[in-house]
Amino acid sequence: MPELFKVHTPPDAWNLFNRHFGPIVKTERIPTADALDRVLGEAIQSPQDLPEFARSTVDGYAVNAADTYGASPGLPAFLAVVGEVPMGQAAAVHVGVGETALVHTGGMIPPGANAVVMVENTQRVDASSIEVMQPVSEGQSVINVGEDIRQGAPVLAAGRRLRPQDLGGLLALGITEITVAQRPRIGIVSTGDEVVAPGQPVGPGQVRDINSYTLAALATRVGGLPVIYGIVPDDRPALEEVAARAWRECDLVVFSAGSSVSYRDMTADVISGLGQPGVLVHGVSVKPGKPTILAVCDGKPIFGLPGNPVSAMVIFDLFITPTILAMLGAGAPPQQRVRARLARNIASDTGREDYVPVRLEEREGEPWAVPVFGKSNLIYTLVNAEGTIKVALDSNGVRAGEWVMVVMY
Amino acid sequence: MPELFKVHTPPDAWNLFNRHFGPIVKTERIPTADALDRVLGEAIQSPQDLPEFARSTVDGYAVNAADTYGASPGLPAFLAVVGEVPMGQAAAVHVGVGETALVHTGGMIPPGANAVVMVENTQRVDASSIEVMQPVSEGQSVINVGEDIRQGAPVLAAGRRLRPQDLGGLLALGITEITVAQRPRIGIVSTGDEVVAPGQPVGPGQVRDINSYTLAALATRVGGLPVIYGIVPDDRPALEEVAARAWRECDLVVFSAGSSVSYRDMTADVISGLGQPGVLVHGVSVKPGKPTILAVCDGKPIFGLPGNPVSAMVIFDLFITPTILAMLGAGAPPQQRVRARLARNIASDTGREDYVPVRLEEREGEPWAVPVFGKSNLIYTLVNAEGTIKVALDSNGVRAGEWVMVVMY
Repeated sequence: MPELFKVHTPPDAWNLFNRHFGPIVKTERIPTADALDRVLGEAIQSPQDLPEFARSTVDGYAVNAADTYGASPGLPAFLAVVGEVPMGQAAAVHVGVGETALVHTGGMIPPGANAVVMVENTQRVDASSIEVMQPVSEGQSVINVGEDIRQGAPVLAAGRRLRPQDLGGLLALGITEITVAQRPRIGIVSTGDEVVAPGQPVGPGQVRDINSYTLAALATRVGGLPVIYGIVPDDRPALEEVAARAWRECDLVVFSAGSSVSYRDMTADVISGLGQPGVLVHGVSVKPGKPTILAVCDGKPIFGLPGNPVSAMVIFDLFITPTILAMLGAGAPPQQRVRARLARNIASDTGREDYVPVRLEEREGEPWAVPVFGKSNLIYTLVNAEGTIKVALDSNGVRAGEWVMVVMY
Repeated sequence: MPELFKVHTPPDAWNLFNRHFGPIVKTERIPTADALDRVLGEAIQSPQDLPEFARSTVDGYAVNAADTYGASPGLPAFLAVVGEVPMGQAAAVHVGVGETALVHTGGMIPPGANAVVMVENTQRVDASSIEVMQPVSEGQSVINVGEDIRQGAPVLAAGRRLRPQDLGGLLALGITEITVAQRPRIGIVSTGDEVVAPGQPVGPGQVRDINSYTLAALATRVGGLPVIYGIVPDDRPALEEVAARAWRECDLVVFSAGSSVSYRDMTADVISGLGQPGVLVHGVSVKPGKPTILAVCDGKPIFGLPGNPVSAMVIFDLFITPTILAMLGAGAPPQQRVRARLARNIASDTGREDYVPVRLEEREGEPWAVPVFGKSNLIYTLVNAEGTIKVALDSNGVRAGEWVMVVMY
């Protein structure tokens, strides 16, 4: 019963897969206010100048700057107050030479004025006049029409993952509805006679289903919409039925395959039955995660992951995360990366990528990455880890003391 | 109308506020499967050994290791196959000296056996015997009882923000419901006669409400549950009514105060009317964001933020984010930080913290932080920025070429 599959390097595996997978970004219209962390599905130009009227950035007096030139506390400029600009309304008053009008922060600059003197630099003389103690230059304390953004200027490009300020920028322009990428539906199927739902009693020889939930959480984080199909026993007709349903209802399907060879072979066969070209890669030179299946079935990406939870999570990050990002038309979400020194030697084989969970420790002011060793079946190696380091394909290991990059999670 | 408030440094302001604010973490029970990114509200110990039975990590033959010592392809060990361990069931067969049983990855190690020989290192002789071509040591390819986690061992501490693998670790132990910190309800009140809802037509002198939505998004990201109360005009009874309602219904209230001094003073008065001790800080030496109000009213934290969107976001990060984290009993969520060289001089005043939005550029292989200059009222300075740098309180600026830390957003 030896494993007969051909092992590919991760880049080769990705290329084989990617050649048959041309993602189409499906979009939908949603309210901008609900679009935090969604991926913009259209390029947006500004429909207007922002602001549409010149505004004051301070509480003060709108003036002609020239009227204040040379003003000082000893020799203030004397100006006639011709009115006040009410908030939220057009400035009705015109400011002529030698004149001024009271204006509040955010208020409209009245016609005729071209600068604002801060109230702290003025002194009230009487009900209708002030003294200005400091000169202002033209445009001072004024936001000009279009200074925030101009009509027709590019606002945001398609593919942007929307941050709080991006929503603000859109709403400031009155763009209350936008086109975003639909969250791809990520079907998740767990298989194995030994697997039971976490809420069920477990008997001898049985284990609780972890992968349905960790994979759903990973899918959610990257922008997918997980759909959990439950646990399928080692029964080919049952697996075929669930596989066909998940393939039909979802945009991407992940099988957390039973861990033994016979399960894996059955999973590969069932996947290939879903559509063309079927299984493209069966076996990747990565540790943990070697018995990985990458497939495309009539345009939909399908993955078979090793049953053990650590391998499943490593392979999800390596292949499924970039696939979901491609389906969203998005770049990678920001990841926290930390440079640290490796605390112990890690051996690897040339021609294989290794992913090693680590926790961080500070020693004498320097960050150290301490490998959390454990068989790849142990979920607590990941629970106790703060991040992962990668040992490159062409490396036969990393020595203690070397600087490495830790991707935090 | 000069501003009469006393300005505090950010650390002083935080201390004044914090002295009157003792957060109580409110908790609730939820399904573990729904707890991604929630904050654990209890310490959890393992109710069991994991695994509860010794398991094989490979497809192969369970053996007594001693039976394989000295085995080689030229001189294989000969073993009698006494059965197969079915997946998901107790191993019924006993493996004696000179005996072996077929076991699959994840299957139970049968009594009597203490190691597994990978199937690749065996050869089938006939229906009831195999040859072993390579020796195994005791425990090889076996996960022992409790090797993942032991009964009674600490699993996760209170305050942990739950990651995908943490959910997996809990579910593996059958912990399907957990106590998490309730999301604090964050009331958000926008004020100002000039402010209109983004979907409404805007007239001259009016601006669309941004802050309700950017602040709600920031609150969501840190783990709060935003409640938007809409826009209140410059009318004291109206503000008092909404303020009292928000204070009653929420755990924390944020006023995005009208931008002029009179609005701010009114907001401070209304906040102080909500409870004791009332306004603690009115004015912080930070740019942008000076006219900030920090208050505690009968145990609930209340904030008055400057009306302009950039200041409001800076102050939210500086004071409200840590307050929400304290209410969750959580540490700060991971932030992506990037070291970069500053592309232009930034002037600051000693005794003031400055927050400067930047974008990143690579120049000759080095990362450079390019300040996105703009008046603090311009939302597009933040839309066009990838992160922020802080100029410390005791610094009078940073010179071009110096290395700075960029907090990405």
